[in-house]
Amino acid sequence: MAEPLRVGLAGLGTVGSAVAAMIMRSRAELAERAGRPIELVAYAAKDPPKDPALDLSGVRKIDSPIELARSKGLDVFVELMGGEGDPAKSSVEAALGIGRSVVTANKALLARHGVALARLAEGTNALLCFEAAVAGGIPIVKTLRDGLGGSRITRLYGILNGTCNYILTRMHQERMSFAACLKEAQRLGYAEADPTFDIGGFDTAHKLAILTSLAFGTEVDAEAVHVEGIESISLEDLEAADELGYRVKLLGVAQRTSAGIEQRVHPTMVRKGTVIAGIDGVTNAIAIDADTMELTLMGPGAGGAATSASVVADLTDLAAGRRAASFGRPVTRLTKAQRAPIQRHEGGYYIRLAAVDKPGTAATIARRMADENISLESIVQRGRDRKPHGGEDPRSIDTPASVALITYATSEDAVRRALSAIESDGVIAEQPHMIRIEKS
Amino acid sequence: MAEPLRVGLAGLGTVGSAVAAMIMRSRAELAERAGRPIELVAYAAKDPPKDPALDLSGVRKIDSPIELARSKGLDVFVELMGGEGDPAKSSVEAALGIGRSVVTANKALLARHGVALARLAEGTNALLCFEAAVAGGIPIVKTLRDGLGGSRITRLYGILNGTCNYILTRMHQERMSFAACLKEAQRLGYAEADPTFDIGGFDTAHKLAILTSLAFGTEVDAEAVHVEGIESISLEDLEAADELGYRVKLLGVAQRTSAGIEQRVHPTMVRKGTVIAGIDGVTNAIAIDADTMELTLMGPGAGGAATSASVVADLTDLAAGRRAASFGRPVTRLTKAQRAPIQRHEGGYYIRLAAVDKPGTAATIARRMADENISLESIVQRGRDRKPHGGEDPRSIDTPASVALITYATSEDAVRRALSAIESDGVIAEQPHMIRIEKS
Repeated sequence: MAEPLRVGLAGLGTVGSAVAAMIMRSRAELAERAGRPIELVAYAAKDPPKDPALDLSGVRKIDSPIELARSKGLDVFVELMGGEGDPAKSSVEAALGIGRSVVTANKALLARHGVALARLAEGTNALLCFEAAVAGGIPIVKTLRDGLGGSRITRLYGILNGTCNYILTRMHQERMSFAACLKEAQRLGYAEADPTFDIGGFDTAHKLAILTSLAFGTEVDAEAVHVEGIESISLEDLEAADELGYRVKLLGVAQRTSAGIEQRVHPTMVRKGTVIAGIDGVTNAIAIDADTMELTLMGPGAGGAATSASVVADLTDLAAGRRAASFGRPVTRLTKAQRAPIQRHEGGYYIRLAAVDKPGTAATIARRMADENISLESIVQRGRDRKPHGGEDPRSIDTPASVALITYATSEDAVRRALSAIESDGVIAEQPHMIRIEKS
Repeated sequence: MAEPLRVGLAGLGTVGSAVAAMIMRSRAELAERAGRPIELVAYAAKDPPKDPALDLSGVRKIDSPIELARSKGLDVFVELMGGEGDPAKSSVEAALGIGRSVVTANKALLARHGVALARLAEGTNALLCFEAAVAGGIPIVKTLRDGLGGSRITRLYGILNGTCNYILTRMHQERMSFAACLKEAQRLGYAEADPTFDIGGFDTAHKLAILTSLAFGTEVDAEAVHVEGIESISLEDLEAADELGYRVKLLGVAQRTSAGIEQRVHPTMVRKGTVIAGIDGVTNAIAIDADTMELTLMGPGAGGAATSASVVADLTDLAAGRRAASFGRPVTRLTKAQRAPIQRHEGGYYIRLAAVDKPGTAATIARRMADENISLESIVQRGRDRKPHGGEDPRSIDTPASVALITYATSEDAVRRALSAIESDGVIAEQPHMIRIEKS
């Protein structure tokens, strides 16, 4: 059998530990699959392994990741430290710079510096592999890169953040508030102490930017992603959605439109009964619409075991000599996509208004929608929270009534103009809530 | 750019025509992805192209597939004629025999002769690729072969035949009989004039045998698959399943058990609300349970466009020089799996009995189940079709009452013994109907 593929691993957190364990445990099988053994020969880690059972005796410890990236006797550098800055960035650059292939799960690094790193890799004939960077165990990178032949993708959308999906699922199922669900997610380890990165949609945006490049052959452009998080989603929205036949999910959506490539991350209403609407808890799912087919992949988006399988799959490809361009084609062939601004988005909308109780309020709302040529598919008016006291004229109560509307397809611009007009008409008591609807 | 990959294509039916069209249409993009152009240089077909718009001027026509397989100036032979016998088999052998790689969508050929063909390919250093042979556009072969790293698969199951799933979906949704749905499927082109191969479960069995080898590293063993079709499924079963919280699907299931590898194809009850239960119409879906994750892929299982994408993905891999063993590892490393007989299967069962109206019938049925240590999760008794005439003693009516049982996990052997005892007790009017339950 051929010489082993010699691996240097930086980072021994949950995923790093699991990768080391899998390489050792599945030694024989991986050698059969790759045609040569895969051997962990060196590592660097600032903390002891997350998995205390991991036995690294016989594996060389190197002080710093950069030193590891450049050290002699390695074929691949595996970066599992995370973070878009150093030491991840500098050590990946160091490895690629000397023609050493890199496997990484670092979505932030790729979203910010993916094109530059891919260019560096091409220049030295190294490979940059990152199956684990998006949707953990789901082989979505490979599928987009090598699996669809000459298919032309028109849209890609998915649930790419388990934390958000867990929170939205629990809110709906247990009728809990956002804050209470977030706390629970933190207690269970599904959310970080500072959860902004997840619940603000930024993690999803990084992953989406990577997938967009693979799907449309464009340069990774994380700046172009319109990002809204789930912080503003209330139980009331989830219940109104349910009543109207929808579920609310945080989706990342990339779509080819006449205005360019639209990339957006925001809470989204998807029709109940569709696959995406049924994805609960920390599971991830990605749907691909192409001219040839509609394809959906679902599985774990995080966790040491699942993510390590993707890292090791990349190592197996490297060991077997299977080469592919980082983003599916040479960097020079990646196009600079026209950014389609969110204002140009077209689709259905859910709008919830806290209507003040004044004669003519309903008529005002309806007129403003009509002025913008927005047609309504359905309207649900909820009773006021406060009942009139005995003898009180119900029309004198100014507790706002909740009015939920579903529009037919229209443009974001039109919706924004209509809502702004309704606000200045003084017929609503709070800022309007708006959730985009996605066909799934 | 490097020399083109020169392709010879045998068969211009739905898939063959679509492959030829895709190679020509996506020329530039495929060249970018593969690093070299993919060119259709010759073809053989006994009939004119299924797609009349296909322009093959400039492509050499060769009289017979075998001649094509051996002809000079080709890098790959693409076999899209189908059928486990000749000319498919002999032409694939001819190509592999001279070290020429083959791409095929021929599941019957692979299920019967997969190991021999893979051995032949290895001997001449050719590659044998067949992403399109299972589940059309879904990249399940690549996922099982290269996508799961060191994961250990414990079970694989799926809806692998669109015809059967279409029929079962329509029966349930429209309350139609099996015969009526089959006719409709034939009219729409979803079922063949002779539908036995699909509805008898044999097509699913071929696909399952291929997936089993990829998942468990075993030699393809189509003979080991226990096969039951959907012909015996009645609307009454679907309705009883619905009432009990289940849907009926034709599943292919491969599972590692203490008795060996279990391979089975049969109508299966899956709990409503699960992803598999929600797969309707001609869509295919495959779920993989591994020690690292649960992964599900769903998409089109047939059709020219989707299937051609898989064929062209294989061609792109070949053009890019990405090599993989046909079944994920060298033929000599594939093990001969111990066949786990269906009698050893363990799981829940749905049983429907046409109980004759005699005192003690219910007690007899219950006792026979208890004798075999079979515990019942639920029982639904349906009213007799015939109401007593005025003055008639209801107990004198011998129209059988339908009794549907759901058992807790038990063994196939125990169920068969209990049902045989119940039959010989003379308390049922028809052969019992039994459907296995699968956790999904």
